[in-house]
Amino acid sequence: MNDKYYAVIMAGGVGSRFWPVSRNGMPKQFLDILGVGKTFLQMTVDRFAKIVPKENILIVTAAKYKDLVAEQLPEIAPENVLLEPYKRNTAPCIAYATYKLISRNPDATVVVSPSDHYIADEGLFTDTVCSVMKYASTNNDLFTIGIKPTSPNVNYGYIQANKKRGFEFEGHKAYAVKTFTEKPDAELAKVFVDSGEFLWNSGIFIWNLKTIKGELENCLPNVASMFAAGEGLYYTDAEPAFINKVYEDSTSISIDYGVMEKTRKAHVFEGLFGWSDLGTWQSLYEQIPTKDADRNAVQGEHNILTKVSGSVIYEGDSKKLVVVKGLKDYMVIDTADALMICPRDDASVKEILVDLAVKDKESYL
Amino acid sequence: MNDKYYAVIMAGGVGSRFWPVSRNGMPKQFLDILGVGKTFLQMTVDRFAKIVPKENILIVTAAKYKDLVAEQLPEIAPENVLLEPYKRNTAPCIAYATYKLISRNPDATVVVSPSDHYIADEGLFTDTVCSVMKYASTNNDLFTIGIKPTSPNVNYGYIQANKKRGFEFEGHKAYAVKTFTEKPDAELAKVFVDSGEFLWNSGIFIWNLKTIKGELENCLPNVASMFAAGEGLYYTDAEPAFINKVYEDSTSISIDYGVMEKTRKAHVFEGLFGWSDLGTWQSLYEQIPTKDADRNAVQGEHNILTKVSGSVIYEGDSKKLVVVKGLKDYMVIDTADALMICPRDDASVKEILVDLAVKDKESYL
Repeated sequence: MNDKYYAVIMAGGVGSRFWPVSRNGMPKQFLDILGVGKTFLQMTVDRFAKIVPKENILIVTAAKYKDLVAEQLPEIAPENVLLEPYKRNTAPCIAYATYKLISRNPDATVVVSPSDHYIADEGLFTDTVCSVMKYASTNNDLFTIGIKPTSPNVNYGYIQANKKRGFEFEGHKAYAVKTFTEKPDAELAKVFVDSGEFLWNSGIFIWNLKTIKGELENCLPNVASMFAAGEGLYYTDAEPAFINKVYEDSTSISIDYGVMEKTRKAHVFEGLFGWSDLGTWQSLYEQIPTKDADRNAVQGEHNILTKVSGSVIYEGDSKKLVVVKGLKDYMVIDTADALMICPRDDASVKEILVDLAVKDKESYL
Repeated sequence: MNDKYYAVIMAGGVGSRFWPVSRNGMPKQFLDILGVGKTFLQMTVDRFAKIVPKENILIVTAAKYKDLVAEQLPEIAPENVLLEPYKRNTAPCIAYATYKLISRNPDATVVVSPSDHYIADEGLFTDTVCSVMKYASTNNDLFTIGIKPTSPNVNYGYIQANKKRGFEFEGHKAYAVKTFTEKPDAELAKVFVDSGEFLWNSGIFIWNLKTIKGELENCLPNVASMFAAGEGLYYTDAEPAFINKVYEDSTSISIDYGVMEKTRKAHVFEGLFGWSDLGTWQSLYEQIPTKDADRNAVQGEHNILTKVSGSVIYEGDSKKLVVVKGLKDYMVIDTADALMICPRDDASVKEILVDLAVKDKESYL
């Protein structure tokens, strides 16, 4: 395995969309919602351990999740866990990892990835990322992986590929990027997909350190200079205090908006490995591998279901007996302090969370 | 208040129909399912405390509920709590109370009543029972109260009145009884109600001790003689051992089947006070007084309901937040160790309980 290859796994999200299973104190990446015996974060680390040496895997997370990361990933050395004192979106997160890694290995090629997504074909994923890393190690562009759409999904951002400026590397198609777009409405999403030019934005980035450093300096000079000032402090006892100050002062901005949409170096490799960001209960339901004959995804062993179909039954850790009769396409999510019952396609909890905040019931958030 | 008037409240039922709220260890009569601040048993005692002196109220219950009764009814003296060592249906229960009371006051007039029913008009109930007791104190027949049906309910037994042998006492109509019937099917129930001759069997009986003693001797001589043999033992330390032996040997038979259907002394007073045996979740739902604007009966304060109507939400003692979206006419019953979700009109739990017993999950029963 190439010891110049590094993986930066972003695990700072709060994942409130899976309330009441995910919480402020226990977001989605730390959960085994699929019921496969591993959390999303653990699965993500396993995936990249096939691509980069294990000691080259970095986790960036919120300071408050330090113990959770240590517990779930005892094999990751503490100096490889980057703790963010404040939420500042992905650009500062990536800048932190970039400048810290420069002090360790300025010749590195890095894959940056979310920690809570679903990959259907792990073999093809490994193959694709390895190829793109190989390509990025000697080509000074910024690469992202765009997923070939299987439906006009309105929950994803889209990347428009410049079909006239394409190439192929080790069997993987790549294009210069024309535009990054926000989540479209249903009509526009259909236009995107029908055009054949648009790919889903997976949030996976691959580049060599020199190139991303240069583009951070070009596109986000303030952010870049703040983290650059840490030279000599990374990997020392002074790092936490320095990072605390930088995050306090830093703007909050995404890498998409801050760099990828501005740079002229953005390229997209086509990902064909099957992917979902598992951003909704609906998408999660679709990926749960162990459904019963009535298409129920059942987590837990203490239940009696009668005339129940297409539903998610989540018992959590409780030994509670769950008896359900006559529900179709519903979610029944039972946790220690909250019970949610709702239609699977109407499981948006945003207004519920607002309601809770307004009613001074933050303990449930 | 007439100190020859006594009330015998039967509180030995296991009430499995309200699983998972009612349990073997906590049947319906000991619960405040209506959310009114009192259990059914407490409400029943309050009701009869307006009719007979409080020291003349007897509770007959299963030995295992001794502590529950003491806890909920601290005002009832221990010698007024009759403990049944085995389940033997209502005839032995009534025989026990009858022979025990004979040793205390052979001139008593007694009302026997279930402990877990609903009475709409308490004033009219008091008035009716007082009149029937007055009548029964000097008339040597067996009286029951039959409820004038408001629908062809298939969950009740019916009493056919002999309209040719009727009379009126203090404004209350009474008839000789033609037949007692089991629960009819829907078609027959309609015939019953349309005929104007049938009344719902409330399970409330009123008689003087001498008359019921005589009819027990006539109709159930074995049962009668066993309890009669306790003369001199009631209200002594020897009573529990004696009762244990009698119950061990006694047949299990209802007062309806064992006495009321056989005797020629059965009469029925018409009850117009509004009554339900609360035998199903549906009937319970109908009587819950505090429904919200969407006809939801909500027990508990920690809930967020969206597009929920006609439903029962029962949170038990938990402080759990219950979030429900898009349910119509459902039951959501959450208890410490079981969660039940089902249509309100299909809340029969019989097959579930069988299932639990078969699956060696008796701890949930």
